Amino acid sequence: VTKPIRFEDGSLRILDQTLLPHREAWIAIESAERMAEAIVSLRVRGAPAIGIAAALAIAVEAARPGTLASRRERVARAAALLRASRPTAVNLMWACDRMTACAAGGAASPETEAGAWAAALRAEALRIWEEDLAASAAMARHGASLFPDATRLLTHCNTGGLATGGGGTALGVVVELHRRRSEEGRPFHVWATETRPLLQGARLTAWELRNAGVEARLVSDGAAAHTIRRRGIEGVLVGADRVARNGDGANKIGTYALALAARAAGIPFVVVAPRSTLDPSCATGEEIVVEERNPLEVTAFAGVRTAPEGFAAENPAFDVTPADLVTALVTDGGVFRPPADAFTGVDTRS
Amino acid sequence: VTKPIRFEDGSLRILDQTLLPHREAWIAIESAERMAEAIVSLRVRGAPAIGIAAALAIAVEAARPGTLASRRERVARAAALLRASRPTAVNLMWACDRMTACAAGGAASPETEAGAWAAALRAEALRIWEEDLAASAAMARHGASLFPDATRLLTHCNTGGLATGGGGTALGVVVELHRRRSEEGRPFHVWATETRPLLQGARLTAWELRNAGVEARLVSDGAAAHTIRRRGIEGVLVGADRVARNGDGANKIGTYALALAARAAGIPFVVVAPRSTLDPSCATGEEIVVEERNPLEVTAFAGVRTAPEGFAAENPAFDVTPADLVTALVTDGGVFRPPADAFTGVDTRS
Repeated sequence: VTKPIRFEDGSLRILDQTLLPHREAWIAIESAERMAEAIVSLRVRGAPAIGIAAALAIAVEAARPGTLASRRERVARAAALLRASRPTAVNLMWACDRMTACAAGGAASPETEAGAWAAALRAEALRIWEEDLAASAAMARHGASLFPDATRLLTHCNTGGLATGGGGTALGVVVELHRRRSEEGRPFHVWATETRPLLQGARLTAWELRNAGVEARLVSDGAAAHTIRRRGIEGVLVGADRVARNGDGANKIGTYALALAARAAGIPFVVVAPRSTLDPSCATGEEIVVEERNPLEVTAFAGVRTAPEGFAAENPAFDVTPADLVTALVTDGGVFRPPADAFTGVDTRS
Repeated sequence: VTKPIRFEDGSLRILDQTLLPHREAWIAIESAERMAEAIVSLRVRGAPAIGIAAALAIAVEAARPGTLASRRERVARAAALLRASRPTAVNLMWACDRMTACAAGGAASPETEAGAWAAALRAEALRIWEEDLAASAAMARHGASLFPDATRLLTHCNTGGLATGGGGTALGVVVELHRRRSEEGRPFHVWATETRPLLQGARLTAWELRNAGVEARLVSDGAAAHTIRRRGIEGVLVGADRVARNGDGANKIGTYALALAARAAGIPFVVVAPRSTLDPSCATGEEIVVEERNPLEVTAFAGVRTAPEGFAAENPAFDVTPADLVTALVTDGGVFRPPADAFTGVDTRS
């Protein structure tokens, strides 16, 4: 299990994901400012991971010496700063909400009780982390049950331990299947897309798969449909950034094309996401606004410019896969079969 | 018009496409070995262009001093070497066949006739080039007739002047449509995929579109399906490296995914290829062997490694789009509607 965050003896560190896979550098995070910078610059990324990271950064602020009043003020400032660091991330808002609610309760005012109040915030942050690990474990179990025999799967972007508190969503299922096939003494192969423009597949998923001892191969995004058709792929597993009420799912750009390829090949296309990703306020994928990122991410590759100077580019950060292409939606609360109110009755935590 | 090859006073040069768009460098090609290296390393690429390049390289070998017998032997070796440089390219085989047939004819044996024999080979190579330019012009005309009103198109890889003798296949149609819309005083927009792993879209198509004054934007390969669905794209135009008798077409990796996305969006998916690309000896796409290129093209770029050291990758150069996804096959001999013996009755020149 790859945990992207360490919190030992009150000291918080994150693995700098911008340096992976070439260097494994742990950065000490002593303040909310430092964590906000790490989130903005994608040193820590993945919706569940940044929620946990923000909660722990708030706990660190709460533990710094001072009167209870000054600590409360510091925590409020920290939460506001962290929320603003990645405005589209639902889990980040949700984690900051929980920490703020916890900070509002607890000890009344005496300075002697500031320590107990800070300890409560620390416990809440660790609870958020623990809950995420439990959710990952549940998704891995539910997702793996869909593939009792599969030995050849394809995945997109990074949805592993690095993107979460240490378990993973789609990649968590993949690693669980690797474990099961290994126990059964059977081979298991994974194909990972490189995931342009930011190469999370090549940089992060490849690193995690290697660490987990999974037999894996990288393919370019454009090669995925061919690979699915010609290499006997038995299922495509992806994560989600937001799932609408009808089961339409927004996820990393490139996902929709994989869903079309899976449909054409007649194999399952499975979305794996915690309930915190389900958005009951969103009726269909048409309502999801697609974030456009910096075009320079497309006109350059790994820091090297590829297109002619100043050439225009479009850089949608995610796309929306219609529910009718989704074979199953795996959550920590169980497996759903879109379309049509995919997660009716699920506690969505939102 | 961008011609990727120059042949002046018997001196052969090619534009080194691996250095585009940053540098426009012309390389002198004095031997078939040098041309084979240029083809293998993609300094010259695009099915029609490498056919012409190989024919001219054979003409250069024929022109080198020596007895007619030694020249014949040299030409035979050159043709074999050039054929092996890009095994999937049917135009290359066809161009080498024509040059070999031409070499087999002509003067009987006297050394005095070696010059005339070499001149015949030179004329044949130039004829192949001229025919290609005429074919490009015909494809542009036929292809444009399919889009009397379209103002928003998407294309893949590079299929322009650089990929041919100077005209283009799919990009030739796009540039012709740009010309027509300009004459009509109407806007015209093109989206080009970057085309990993070798980025021919970002490097070459962007360069050609800019040179042609076309309003264009680059997208990552994974973003194409989303772009087709959400940006009002009216048609997808691609080239082909080989078209089977039933209309299945092999083309640059990523093409099949675009065909699926076009089908899902209900817009035309048009393959543009000269008749020299049609292969009547090939019944269906299942028979087409897909060339696997060096995995380092996927795990690194421009000397920058992206995946962990030694991580495995697969790098199919082409994929096969089934005929039932192809709305129209535009050739220099007219427009065909696959599937079912797409080009029955066409003079395929093979």
